[in-house]
Amino acid sequence: MAKTARIVAQGDEITTGATLDTNSAWLAERLFDRGIRVLGTASAPDDLDLLARLLLDSSRDCDLLISTGGLGPTTDDVTTEAVGKALGVPLEERAEALEQIRARFRVIGRPMTPSNRKQALLPRGTALLENPAGTAPGFAVDLGRARAFFFPGPPHELHVMADRHLFPWLQEQGSAPLLRRRFHVCGVGESVLQDRLADLALPAGVRLGYKTWLPFNSILLYGETDAAEPLARAAIEVRARLGEDLLGEDDETLPQVVGRLLLARGWTMALAESCTAGGAAALATEVPGSSAWFKGGVVAYSNDVKTGLLGVPATLLAEHGAVSEECAGAMAEAVRRAAAADVGVSITGIAGPDGGSPQKPVGLVCFGLALPHATSTRTVRFGIRGRDRVRSMAAATALEWLRRKLVARSP
Amino acid sequence: MAKTARIVAQGDEITTGATLDTNSAWLAERLFDRGIRVLGTASAPDDLDLLARLLLDSSRDCDLLISTGGLGPTTDDVTTEAVGKALGVPLEERAEALEQIRARFRVIGRPMTPSNRKQALLPRGTALLENPAGTAPGFAVDLGRARAFFFPGPPHELHVMADRHLFPWLQEQGSAPLLRRRFHVCGVGESVLQDRLADLALPAGVRLGYKTWLPFNSILLYGETDAAEPLARAAIEVRARLGEDLLGEDDETLPQVVGRLLLARGWTMALAESCTAGGAAALATEVPGSSAWFKGGVVAYSNDVKTGLLGVPATLLAEHGAVSEECAGAMAEAVRRAAAADVGVSITGIAGPDGGSPQKPVGLVCFGLALPHATSTRTVRFGIRGRDRVRSMAAATALEWLRRKLVARSP
Repeated sequence: MAKTARIVAQGDEITTGATLDTNSAWLAERLFDRGIRVLGTASAPDDLDLLARLLLDSSRDCDLLISTGGLGPTTDDVTTEAVGKALGVPLEERAEALEQIRARFRVIGRPMTPSNRKQALLPRGTALLENPAGTAPGFAVDLGRARAFFFPGPPHELHVMADRHLFPWLQEQGSAPLLRRRFHVCGVGESVLQDRLADLALPAGVRLGYKTWLPFNSILLYGETDAAEPLARAAIEVRARLGEDLLGEDDETLPQVVGRLLLARGWTMALAESCTAGGAAALATEVPGSSAWFKGGVVAYSNDVKTGLLGVPATLLAEHGAVSEECAGAMAEAVRRAAAADVGVSITGIAGPDGGSPQKPVGLVCFGLALPHATSTRTVRFGIRGRDRVRSMAAATALEWLRRKLVARSP
Repeated sequence: MAKTARIVAQGDEITTGATLDTNSAWLAERLFDRGIRVLGTASAPDDLDLLARLLLDSSRDCDLLISTGGLGPTTDDVTTEAVGKALGVPLEERAEALEQIRARFRVIGRPMTPSNRKQALLPRGTALLENPAGTAPGFAVDLGRARAFFFPGPPHELHVMADRHLFPWLQEQGSAPLLRRRFHVCGVGESVLQDRLADLALPAGVRLGYKTWLPFNSILLYGETDAAEPLARAAIEVRARLGEDLLGEDDETLPQVVGRLLLARGWTMALAESCTAGGAAALATEVPGSSAWFKGGVVAYSNDVKTGLLGVPATLLAEHGAVSEECAGAMAEAVRRAAAADVGVSITGIAGPDGGSPQKPVGLVCFGLALPHATSTRTVRFGIRGRDRVRSMAAATALEWLRRKLVARSP
């Protein structure tokens, strides 16, 4: 049974800071969930000797080694060669790998270039791992004390291949997954959560942690497989402390929950967005099947579009400005009507870096929410956090506000 | 002069994937810019032996070792102890460090807790580094072949301390910053780029690399400070090879370039989006000041909104379906008219995971582009890459298509 692992990422893009290595964290989280202890992560530049040495060093004291990156068609992709060097075996072209690469190019309808042929070269004795999402096949081999898996670097390819090749292997190995429950909130800070849970007496065998991705925060409860009962007890307590702040658990996301609450009423929604310019609609439609409850809306970035396509009165804009609760209310009602939806939601604010004033500083965002019988408006000051952050926080805040309204008025 | 470095991060939060290690990428980028080659990054959990071994291993082959994290007041912060173990020296309480911690608590107006006293314990022989942004002092010491710097993990504390203690030390050492040029393309694969540059003779002192973030790819040229002239020559050659595929250089982004090209004509644009549902509008408006050329548009997610708000004929939808070049063309013309813009761009496709058919598989996306005197349409098959990826690639592809049209018809 695999109990310990190390994770290696390859590429100058990581050792020069051009790319943030999200793959190692993604893998670490999933290994943790499966009860595997990660003894370390590491990266090497596009350097054959450094990478070969890292692979050898990393495979000495653990059961599982996972490597990402460096399987591409270009000369700076040296992982395959480094594995050959570490194992002391030559590379050989695999007919099966070449066929998979050709099939991949047929699927995407593009000609295969000569350099892609390099991706069919694998170290002798390695097991080919099919890549259904890209041109670079992966492979697995015994290296040092570890079973070593080599996956490509593009995150979506890694995710598909880990689902297909790594996690089933771990399950066959009989890994003992940790039990973990996650409780998500939006717009409630970590220190507020800590204060609210400060006197929570955790049952033996249950640990608690936090994870932040503003405006979202998650509380994690975890324990070994035999801690199911105390974990369930702790979960009840956490749920009670969070109350209506709890937006969802485990894999639930905000747009999923909003969709479920709308569907429960047979309602649809539409969005009118100014400063977020489609970001909230894109967030809502991350959920497959969202067309059952999301109709669409208007990106009312210019005042022209606010008055023209959306029909906000020009006098209202002139009197209160585009960033005002008055305008937000009118936008929400207008998009609800225009899209023939049950709920209209609107966002209009100052994302920055320019456009702020003492009365309406950068980071100030107004929201509107038009329900069948009432329209509400509110204003949130997100502060100076950078344009991207203000926009993504505003998009999430709009959906979270709708969620709270829908929960408060359960059918 | 320091020429090579390694970066180490400490903490269970990294090896369990709870926190993304942004510190190492931040340091790597700044070292690269200063001409230091990073031979690798690595992390260790809250484990004294693993961390001590990692520090020893990492200090063998480089001039500079930078460690982040593990200097906090709690028992899982083991970096100081690990350094003592690696050096074979005891920890001792430093009066100067204790005074700095006390001063820090006076600044933030909170009582110092007994556990913070632990932070004044440093390995014998280390040089104290003041932390103006937090309670944990850092320190520096010779370890193995390297000068080793130990900084706290909170990013803002690391940044302040690196500015104060690390970068001035590097400058004293006489570091030679690298020169770097970047050339960006969209929708041209890395293997195609590689083939196109295959016979490029790089001048001495100039190196070439790639960076991929689909559908974007970048070519990097870099060299030492004395390579300015050969780097400029290589840049001319890369530009010539890329031709109209080159969308921008260095810090330029696709929406910036599209905006600049539109402004040069005094044109505005509007977007009608189905499957991307606002993602392309959000991408366009990442640029501050985009309101000068981006008017907004319609998120036509449901057919209702396509026919109602946008005015696509219901007969056209019935005959060709919503995912068709016919519909894309009608959407582009309709949004151009509705938003009173000079250019209308549309996106309608099957993001998946469901909704595909043999004729119109998941990943098939149709685009429309309505210019003042002509409307064009096209279809792209992105393949099975996951819903998010198809949507983000479709959004970028729409803007890139517009860019190419605008470049081809320069005023």
